[in-house]
Amino acid sequence: MTTIEEARRRDEADPLHDYRERFHLPKGVIYLDGNSLGALPLATRDRLKEVVDEEWGHGLIRSWNDANWIDLPSRVGAKIAPLIGAQAHEVLACDSTSVNLFKLIAAALKMQSGRKVILSEPGNFPTDLYMIQGLQQQGLAEQRLAAPDEIEAALGEDVALLLLTHTHYRTGRKHDMARLTAAAHEAGALALWDLSHSCGAMPVHLNECDADFAVGCGYKYLNGGPGAPAFLYAAEKHHIDAEQPLTGWLGHKQPFAFEDDYTPAAGVERMLAGTPPILGLSALEVGVDLVAEMGIERLYAKSQALSEFLRECLSARGVELDLVSPDDPSERGSQLSFRHPEAYAISQALIARGVIGDYREPEILRLGFAPAYLRFEDMAETARHLAEILESREYERAEFNERAAVT
Amino acid sequence: MTTIEEARRRDEADPLHDYRERFHLPKGVIYLDGNSLGALPLATRDRLKEVVDEEWGHGLIRSWNDANWIDLPSRVGAKIAPLIGAQAHEVLACDSTSVNLFKLIAAALKMQSGRKVILSEPGNFPTDLYMIQGLQQQGLAEQRLAAPDEIEAALGEDVALLLLTHTHYRTGRKHDMARLTAAAHEAGALALWDLSHSCGAMPVHLNECDADFAVGCGYKYLNGGPGAPAFLYAAEKHHIDAEQPLTGWLGHKQPFAFEDDYTPAAGVERMLAGTPPILGLSALEVGVDLVAEMGIERLYAKSQALSEFLRECLSARGVELDLVSPDDPSERGSQLSFRHPEAYAISQALIARGVIGDYREPEILRLGFAPAYLRFEDMAETARHLAEILESREYERAEFNERAAVT
Repeated sequence: MTTIEEARRRDEADPLHDYRERFHLPKGVIYLDGNSLGALPLATRDRLKEVVDEEWGHGLIRSWNDANWIDLPSRVGAKIAPLIGAQAHEVLACDSTSVNLFKLIAAALKMQSGRKVILSEPGNFPTDLYMIQGLQQQGLAEQRLAAPDEIEAALGEDVALLLLTHTHYRTGRKHDMARLTAAAHEAGALALWDLSHSCGAMPVHLNECDADFAVGCGYKYLNGGPGAPAFLYAAEKHHIDAEQPLTGWLGHKQPFAFEDDYTPAAGVERMLAGTPPILGLSALEVGVDLVAEMGIERLYAKSQALSEFLRECLSARGVELDLVSPDDPSERGSQLSFRHPEAYAISQALIARGVIGDYREPEILRLGFAPAYLRFEDMAETARHLAEILESREYERAEFNERAAVT
Repeated sequence: MTTIEEARRRDEADPLHDYRERFHLPKGVIYLDGNSLGALPLATRDRLKEVVDEEWGHGLIRSWNDANWIDLPSRVGAKIAPLIGAQAHEVLACDSTSVNLFKLIAAALKMQSGRKVILSEPGNFPTDLYMIQGLQQQGLAEQRLAAPDEIEAALGEDVALLLLTHTHYRTGRKHDMARLTAAAHEAGALALWDLSHSCGAMPVHLNECDADFAVGCGYKYLNGGPGAPAFLYAAEKHHIDAEQPLTGWLGHKQPFAFEDDYTPAAGVERMLAGTPPILGLSALEVGVDLVAEMGIERLYAKSQALSEFLRECLSARGVELDLVSPDDPSERGSQLSFRHPEAYAISQALIARGVIGDYREPEILRLGFAPAYLRFEDMAETARHLAEILESREYERAEFNERAAVT
């Protein structure tokens, strides 16, 4: 059986097959960058029209109450919670991943008086490290980096917080959240997980792993739209002790009392800062609803099957590439990263053929597999394009787009 | 001449009269809360449809380059700049007002080593004070409050920063930016102005006043939509020294180099944190364009004329209310605030008649005059409704909406 026939057979058997029609996907494009910006759910168009025309246009200021705008951070957070193994009242959708990292690192430092070290790994997604460095610049933190297999050894008595990204943005390698969280606790440290490249593509078990804090991104596998609000998680047990310094008016116990003195809200709402972005949160809610409807276990199973099938198709065509992602699909997120000295040129040649993946420094061709809307047929076609590009060396002639895309 | 005839005469002579048609305003509503949430520009509906369908849906990840999403914070900031007397490269649209306050207060503290006091006034908008308190909680700041006429005396040698809201959210009272900024500098302090209730309603002269920093809101007079991104200003002279701690990846000198170490961007872009919210920024851009087209001087002239005309109409009907806003329109923003023991009930009775203003603790009926879309006829009608409500005491029977609206 040819790979294309096998691909079609698998697509027919795919329980998520029909969900592809719930997204807008441009004709002639195979979109392997949903790990960077998720595709547009058709329902988002209608929902945004309603929010703009009815809620803003007609309801005006009344919609803070009548359309429950004021509850959006909690409502969307509660919908994200089951995707990441958290309780509904432990999650909020708000601000950016960067800003939420700052809040939670600062809260952890305050809880851990006497300890200043934030332990992470070199090559973590930059904003995670930069936010540690921001608190270091304030004189409140000290950054320590340890390679993945040296993390446990680096968990000394001075470590306040272990901050890791669950699925690595470049390689797709997954950390063992349960083991590393336990090791952090053993050393008296707290654990904060960045779920940006995990949430929506695989089940995450924050409560089960006893994770203290987490953040994640709304615009990747959650399909919340460009620059969508992010989310944050604070374990219930920390809702009294965790105090973050971005004490905006909506984190106050009684925002509408307009008091001069800040008193944090009793629950996770103390992690809110300013007025919530209603357009962004409304779009994110649609994306989250869709992921929940598809089922995170089914999405995860399909994501692994897609990437393994692409590898089979490449093998069948005799294409050998240097895989920097883990070989075992259970050890990686929903992506395959290949190292090649001409990775950038190859990514551009693929784009010229309508196959949109991306390039990451250094020398990494990154292909992401958003299971919500990709087909096995797309994998077979990607393998064909990649084989042809490598065979013809057309990448040597590809027109380069000089500016990199947002991760 | 009756007040309604006079109102219509003024509407006909109003050079901004036709701009009302560029907004969606619900039938039967007189909207006096544009100082809280601005009305929907009709062009925003089309622009958002384009951003969603074309840029996100069709362009996908390519739109970060092809649709210049990556430039939106700078592009919208540059358009806000002339409205506040700043240079284009001194302003960014990003994050919330609260988060931007934190960045700039922290930057000022770092520049002023040895000084920790942030001077503000009691009753300032809560988020301004709460953000000082957030830095105080970090051990980096010390809040000091002084009544408006005691501010200059309170500018001691320990003051790092004077943080004031230009137009007070409750009373509408304007501070003298030039005088107080000069006094702060005289004492060796920096000055940060919150322009949330000024920007879009009156000209602001940041450069002329030698202001160091400013923040402001996108969803009030700029008509950017609910929870729109805010803006921040950093004077060019501080672009090298001002370092803020929310060092997200987009504030990096080379975000797409994905380096482990943070190096701030050379210009105001160092004040960016995470990935920009594209839906919110796109809507804000339409609102800002419209304000710029109308002309900030014309808007200011009309806003003063509207509020003074309302007072004339109230006088003509024999209504006497306790005005807590300054009597002289040049000393206040685009609002009138009246103190009344039944202010909340009166605001609800007005809403029941389709006149939407709002209530602010304690005992304040707040009426805002967004000059972009209000008519003099609306002022005459508001005066009639208010006179009838006070005369009939129907406010004693008004149904109360228990939850307050967002300022």
